Amino acid sequence: MRNRQVKLKQYPEGMPRPGDFELVTAQAPVPAEGHVLCRTRYLSLDPYMRSQIAGRHISGTIAPGDLMRGESVGEVVTSENPGFEPGQLVRGFGGWQEYFALPGDALSPVSSQLSHPSWALSLLGMTGLTAWAGMVWQANVKPGDRVLIPAVTGGVGSAAAQFCTLHGAEVVGTAGSDEKCLFAKKELGAEACINRKSGGLATQLDDAFPEGIDVYFDLVGGELLTLASERLALNARVVLAGLMSEYNQAERAAGPPPGFWIRARAIVYGLVVYDFEARREEFIQACLPHIAAGRLSQREDVAEGIEATSEAFCRLMRGENFGKAIVAM
Amino acid sequence: MRNRQVKLKQYPEGMPRPGDFELVTAQAPVPAEGHVLCRTRYLSLDPYMRSQIAGRHISGTIAPGDLMRGESVGEVVTSENPGFEPGQLVRGFGGWQEYFALPGDALSPVSSQLSHPSWALSLLGMTGLTAWAGMVWQANVKPGDRVLIPAVTGGVGSAAAQFCTLHGAEVVGTAGSDEKCLFAKKELGAEACINRKSGGLATQLDDAFPEGIDVYFDLVGGELLTLASERLALNARVVLAGLMSEYNQAERAAGPPPGFWIRARAIVYGLVVYDFEARREEFIQACLPHIAAGRLSQREDVAEGIEATSEAFCRLMRGENFGKAIVAM
Repeated sequence: MRNRQVKLKQYPEGMPRPGDFELVTAQAPVPAEGHVLCRTRYLSLDPYMRSQIAGRHISGTIAPGDLMRGESVGEVVTSENPGFEPGQLVRGFGGWQEYFALPGDALSPVSSQLSHPSWALSLLGMTGLTAWAGMVWQANVKPGDRVLIPAVTGGVGSAAAQFCTLHGAEVVGTAGSDEKCLFAKKELGAEACINRKSGGLATQLDDAFPEGIDVYFDLVGGELLTLASERLALNARVVLAGLMSEYNQAERAAGPPPGFWIRARAIVYGLVVYDFEARREEFIQACLPHIAAGRLSQREDVAEGIEATSEAFCRLMRGENFGKAIVAM
Repeated sequence: MRNRQVKLKQYPEGMPRPGDFELVTAQAPVPAEGHVLCRTRYLSLDPYMRSQIAGRHISGTIAPGDLMRGESVGEVVTSENPGFEPGQLVRGFGGWQEYFALPGDALSPVSSQLSHPSWALSLLGMTGLTAWAGMVWQANVKPGDRVLIPAVTGGVGSAAAQFCTLHGAEVVGTAGSDEKCLFAKKELGAEACINRKSGGLATQLDDAFPEGIDVYFDLVGGELLTLASERLALNARVVLAGLMSEYNQAERAAGPPPGFWIRARAIVYGLVVYDFEARREEFIQACLPHIAAGRLSQREDVAEGIEATSEAFCRLMRGENFGKAIVAM
């Protein structure tokens, strides 16, 4: 059975281009005992993958010639594991390929209550869990908190905005276009949204947070982390969850002057979503009723087919996606 | 009654010099109703005062012509407040002068159980409370934690080292001379101490923390904050309590790359000791038995007389003090 895969061809210089990847054809794997062969239905594309390529990600590195890794929803084709049966939808780290085989303990069933199975990769997946862990478990957002969320229409940002408003907090987002800002206000519950390309970011933040920022969910690092840190309210919480601004740079950038955090008596949390894997089910169960009631949803930016994967990832890196980047196969 | 005072004469350029201050003679104040006139017995000199002069401290600024501020232990001379009587020792923000008058609610009695009344300005004072708040209340040090404490023979550092060992943690200090390092090991319970002038700080930290730093008490900012952040163990705690390295600089320096904190899943706390004023008595009561039993003590670097104050402060700024800087009068 033919299995098309995307491998890293060469290290990108700065912003990745489709030519940095290559589409190759292999044979679909034969599942060993205890393993399950799945056909990829949906593949999640995420900014952290750029960091794996740069050799700086906690989950390991990707070198030229390696299969690109990533989480996917697959449909069981053949199962050598009594816990899974053909036709069932499962979630696991299948990678950028049409078929994958994994041991049963590396797979989780996708809840049949979930109207959109691909949301197991977004709202209820890694991006949603990141948002929940950061905003609910770490920052403990509560009514009255004013929260700044960058890239608010992206995977983590859109989940975080909805989780914050669900907990009574007021959200100000940033996004890369007026269209995205409109979406953040109409669909994600954001009270305001700053188009980061419209200039005068510092002034716009001053206007949006006259009494300071109570919670900042840092997904980007760089300038916005410093501007936000300078504007924290007393007893602010900052969750450091990503460094989008430097994924395409060779060097780590310095952080904000620590005096900003002292002044605010801030508590700053480093967040690595893998640490919360054991609590994923608790998070999913907390969200399912809200999804059923229409209080939580997920906009996706869907590319079609394995051959569209590299370009879809490059679009994500350029910030051109609108919604969680997904490849449907 | 003659009251000699030290005022700021001019803004220092970089490192302060005695000529930046001037000794002036005024009349001792006459206490209003409810106020208490005290003769200064001990005055605390602290690095944060440089920050007040730079206009960057949370407690307010000092401009040329202003009396230098600071906490002192005074002996009541005359009291217009029924809560205080002549001869009693009290603590309050008396400033750099021989006599001060303050309302009763700005004064606290010095515990008569305290063998060394000047320790009310150090081990049981602002520096001790800073150390306790950071290490015990925020970082929650516990047996097995390996803790890095800079300026370990200074006011905050020496208290922090003792509080950490009291809680079963292992302390590695840094100090500016071999003599100070020896003191840290012999008298403060430090397991190791790095002479920061001996070069190769990064390598010495690697050697001292083969499994990473569990708790870092940042009193200095700058290079050490970045080196320590790079070497944090999983679930490390960082307490940001001072920026000694930049008190004499005009510009705020950037902080460590935030990726170091994400990787360690660190929790970083901004600490402002004033926030813990309400819990000072709880802290004092926790320490008094340990002081009585000889498990906690305080080395002081004592200058004599109001006329020695400016130079003693400049010595502190140059890192030449050995122990908590105090002026006895």
